[in-house]
Amino acid sequence: MSALSLAPVDLAKSYLLLNHGPLTLVSSAAGGRRNVMAAAWAMPLDFNPAKVAVVIDKTTLTRELVEASGEFVLNLPTRAQAAAVLAAGSLSGRELPAETDKFARCGLAALPGRKLGTPLVAGCVGWLECKLIVEPHNQQAYDLCIGEVVGAWADPAVFSDGRWHFPDADRHTIHYRAGGHFFATGEAFSLPADSSNE
Amino acid sequence: MSALSLAPVDLAKSYLLLNHGPLTLVSSAAGGRRNVMAAAWAMPLDFNPAKVAVVIDKTTLTRELVEASGEFVLNLPTRAQAAAVLAAGSLSGRELPAETDKFARCGLAALPGRKLGTPLVAGCVGWLECKLIVEPHNQQAYDLCIGEVVGAWADPAVFSDGRWHFPDADRHTIHYRAGGHFFATGEAFSLPADSSNE
Repeated sequence: MSALSLAPVDLAKSYLLLNHGPLTLVSSAAGGRRNVMAAAWAMPLDFNPAKVAVVIDKTTLTRELVEASGEFVLNLPTRAQAAAVLAAGSLSGRELPAETDKFARCGLAALPGRKLGTPLVAGCVGWLECKLIVEPHNQQAYDLCIGEVVGAWADPAVFSDGRWHFPDADRHTIHYRAGGHFFATGEAFSLPADSSNE
Repeated sequence: MSALSLAPVDLAKSYLLLNHGPLTLVSSAAGGRRNVMAAAWAMPLDFNPAKVAVVIDKTTLTRELVEASGEFVLNLPTRAQAAAVLAAGSLSGRELPAETDKFARCGLAALPGRKLGTPLVAGCVGWLECKLIVEPHNQQAYDLCIGEVVGAWADPAVFSDGRWHFPDADRHTIHYRAGGHFFATGEAFSLPADSSNE
């Protein structure tokens, strides 16, 4: 994966990256520290301006960094990255020594943020750079973090013109079950859509 | 589909029905009227007590019925139901004559609610009966509705003991893209999970 495999996605169409319910990696950074965690509980929240919702437990280092920076990135990992995703979901950034980079520990590489200071996870196929919309009640009561999408990117070999077209099994997005069990995003099928649904 | 194909799911494990990000149908009923709409923007929000979050636009009849009854059901439709799901996502209950039943109009049948008064969609493979947790700011600002899961059910041929085991292509859950394009839930794969991830 090189930086060249990021192409911009129109913000008003960025919900299409998340619409099918894939597993995400949440990356975060603040005060010279960065972190990455797995989050299955993420969804689009609005089209334009594009917003997302993601559950980030208040005990996590990610939550601390997101609230400190006011930013997070939702990265869409692939089947080829499933072991790294599982490591990111199992290891607690808070329990690692402060000098340990959780990206490296999980076998993940970071790319510089495009619109924000939070790094992107290399090798993913979609990225949503988000500014936290501060909602203290949601964050406290539900661990629910809402973000406005300010930058959206995709690997053009996998997503372009608003459509997924997974070129090989390794680059399918994935869906988390529990206990190390996943689904790959499966067979595409289409039905004639009413124009009102477009 | 008979009523016999519903088996109870432990509420604390009910997030597993939604964890992989499938498309949902939201059913609702109040004042002698019932409705059903498609919602791709739904996710688990907590384990125990189990909660969910779903985006329901404030212009919809569903939203009116959910706020009137304080209830909704998230139903998990199958690939075999995709045309009905698309109809439910395209037709507005508000624009149908009040005497028209949108379930029937979409080719869907209803089952009586088990724990609540809201009907379940027959032929689905999972059901989450939810009591609306009233959050006026979220509902107004984000069309975000939060519910506590008070009843969870699955077709035991498809989900049992906390695991999906799709027996045939017709009964796979589905994931929505846009414009009549779907993905089926795809290949299952597993990695050795750290025990902390169970």
